[in-house]
Amino acid sequence: MYEKEIIKGFSKLSKEQKVKKVASYFSNPEEVEKELKSFWHPELGKQKLFEEFAENTISNFFFPYGLAPNVIINGKNYMIPMVIEESSVIAAASNSAKFWFTRGGFHTRILSKTKIGQVHFIWAGDHKLLKQHFATLKQLFIEGTNEITKNMRERGGGILAIELIDMRHEIDDYFQIKASFDTIDSMGANFINSCLEEFADILKRYITNTQELKNNSVHIIMSILSNYTPDCLVEAWVECDIKDLEGIDPDMTTDEFVWKFEKAVQVATVDTYRATTHNKGIFNGVDAVVLATGNDFRAVEACGHTYASRDGKYRSLTKVELKNGRFKYSLTIPLALGTVGGLTKLHPLAKFTMELLGDPHAEDLMQIAAVAGLANNFGAIRSLTTKGIQKGHMKMHLLNILNNFAATENEKHAAMEYFKDKKVSFSAVSDFVKEIRK
Amino acid sequence: MYEKEIIKGFSKLSKEQKVKKVASYFSNPEEVEKELKSFWHPELGKQKLFEEFAENTISNFFFPYGLAPNVIINGKNYMIPMVIEESSVIAAASNSAKFWFTRGGFHTRILSKTKIGQVHFIWAGDHKLLKQHFATLKQLFIEGTNEITKNMRERGGGILAIELIDMRHEIDDYFQIKASFDTIDSMGANFINSCLEEFADILKRYITNTQELKNNSVHIIMSILSNYTPDCLVEAWVECDIKDLEGIDPDMTTDEFVWKFEKAVQVATVDTYRATTHNKGIFNGVDAVVLATGNDFRAVEACGHTYASRDGKYRSLTKVELKNGRFKYSLTIPLALGTVGGLTKLHPLAKFTMELLGDPHAEDLMQIAAVAGLANNFGAIRSLTTKGIQKGHMKMHLLNILNNFAATENEKHAAMEYFKDKKVSFSAVSDFVKEIRK
Repeated sequence: MYEKEIIKGFSKLSKEQKVKKVASYFSNPEEVEKELKSFWHPELGKQKLFEEFAENTISNFFFPYGLAPNVIINGKNYMIPMVIEESSVIAAASNSAKFWFTRGGFHTRILSKTKIGQVHFIWAGDHKLLKQHFATLKQLFIEGTNEITKNMRERGGGILAIELIDMRHEIDDYFQIKASFDTIDSMGANFINSCLEEFADILKRYITNTQELKNNSVHIIMSILSNYTPDCLVEAWVECDIKDLEGIDPDMTTDEFVWKFEKAVQVATVDTYRATTHNKGIFNGVDAVVLATGNDFRAVEACGHTYASRDGKYRSLTKVELKNGRFKYSLTIPLALGTVGGLTKLHPLAKFTMELLGDPHAEDLMQIAAVAGLANNFGAIRSLTTKGIQKGHMKMHLLNILNNFAATENEKHAAMEYFKDKKVSFSAVSDFVKEIRK
Repeated sequence: MYEKEIIKGFSKLSKEQKVKKVASYFSNPEEVEKELKSFWHPELGKQKLFEEFAENTISNFFFPYGLAPNVIINGKNYMIPMVIEESSVIAAASNSAKFWFTRGGFHTRILSKTKIGQVHFIWAGDHKLLKQHFATLKQLFIEGTNEITKNMRERGGGILAIELIDMRHEIDDYFQIKASFDTIDSMGANFINSCLEEFADILKRYITNTQELKNNSVHIIMSILSNYTPDCLVEAWVECDIKDLEGIDPDMTTDEFVWKFEKAVQVATVDTYRATTHNKGIFNGVDAVVLATGNDFRAVEACGHTYASRDGKYRSLTKVELKNGRFKYSLTIPLALGTVGGLTKLHPLAKFTMELLGDPHAEDLMQIAAVAGLANNFGAIRSLTTKGIQKGHMKMHLLNILNNFAATENEKHAAMEYFKDKKVSFSAVSDFVKEIRK
């Protein structure tokens, strides 16, 4: 099955033809065709929309769209939409939200909101001369992109700064133009890339036309935004008196819990193997919001994990503070998100998400996504340090395992009853199903 | 709109009731309800499946499911399914596949395939004693998990090694049990976590019952797999004679192209701002395959980016080698993927993906995902170093922009014709649409 014939002009085929082509690889092509089409949206126009997001599309991949209610952020009550295929992520966020609901909720603040772009180039001439000309060049960059930046400037954003970075200690004759931007409510990738490509053209023309510089030709390597935005930063935290954590676990005193919780976060700070998983749990929540809003989760992930390694060792993004009888748990994370442009208003459910969140600005969305990340991580550390992760998670996963055996509703109810006080594993569920079907 | 009332027992509501509740926040509740339901799968059973993947689900979020045809991997021809919401990712993978099709295709090899789990604990006793007892403990860990590991051992996997790690230089009295596993074709998270929680119980009982050790009680902080798997590693590469790259760009000689390409990869190796974006492009391709197979992209992202920072600086995951007139470009990436368990056979389109890929083993899937990553990155670097990213990407994105203006098919055709030789930007498209609608 894996070895396919060579297909010429696949992208030129209509969607119907593509589906037929793919289905022809199967022994039951008509069923496969029907199955693929069963995921199409019933409205032609909407279906076309999804297809045009990407290329060579033949169907839609469904992800569950769920909700975490009663999430208090800076005193306001949010219902947070989350798109996630993993069981217990939405449950963890909801449980954390519920726990903190009566303890002041979540708090957040924006620390900074700057995006970065770079023109990478090689120039073998006298670096002092280049530096001398850079003030003029900077002016030309700004003037030359006036047309591109017009709308952004009207909204209060645009180019914030342009620097020349000497990188010759790393690569011979290598320089960067490093620019920073405020893209207001848009993620800004296309805006930044368009500016940068213009900078590169201007730089090239300038060097070619300047007597002092033109003996050495400039080689533009590339012009592209950076997904690493350590100055587009949001902090989210929870805090309360330690005594108000009382009853967090039936088998532990509050002090024991706090001690263990602190140790767990310390471990994620000093041990990279643990830090990766600790942060992965944060991104379970962050990405679920990023997905639900039509933002780009690869950009968010790449940025956040790079930030986690910024001091030379990959570490936890959260920290815990215990002072004067207070418990404070905080997440600091770079999040370059948009609430206009891209798919945010184009994907019908992303649009719905934005409406449900009260049409947030980018800064609002940064705070909401950070809270989802902190809520998930708090839930994970709480489970890990008390009853262990498997008990809760496997209970959530039980229905998935049962679906593997095509369990009936009656069988599901029986299984949920049976496993109330037993460990769930794939083989234990398998045995149970075999037994009751006898 | 953002401030919601406090909702009690939301998770207890039926899906219908949840939808009604959410719709009630809008001025047009009936339409909203209809919209949310329009994304449900028409078959009740399938819809229920999606709902049970997660919690509090009310609808499905659609992602385009597309195909990259003619991807040659180790001489075999694959059609690779990709789930991605970003335009030009599937196009880039397809173009790279087409380019390498006549140049030997992609090559891959598995370097290692080990998963990691840890029990983190605090014990204030004599560390020498603990080390002495560890051989006995190890035996007990293995015996005590015989029931859990039985199926895995039958398939050729199981526990590979168990070590005691002294971490007291980082945190007082802190030790780890670090275990490595072969989970064959499953991602193995539940398997590993179940083993670890058992290890923790055994450790606790052993210390409590051993005369020499019991004066100091053990505190289990947590037991959990690590998503950082630097020894679950795959390499993918392309290679050919430099002269066979001829014609890669109409405006450049082959030598110029190779020189620029090499510089671009060097830049991503020495500059973290660029490395993040460089690797983000790899994950565009990797994640699209991860999503299409029902694997967990947060785990894959966390692991890969941690790996990129392993030497103390966040760097490119790819490297280029130019030797004896040969061009070789390779990606080395840790990928802990599964082809059984989780949602891989449960999500109807993940199941379809697996069938289309010829029911791969985990090792096959690692290689396919790595190739998708390399293909995307090669495409990105090729665009960046030649015509720039905006020209191609914005052409792909043009339809999305047009959809923002609810353009008709006729208007779309006119726009595509008009922008053939012009720069695409949101405002340029906006102006064009205004103009032709006059």
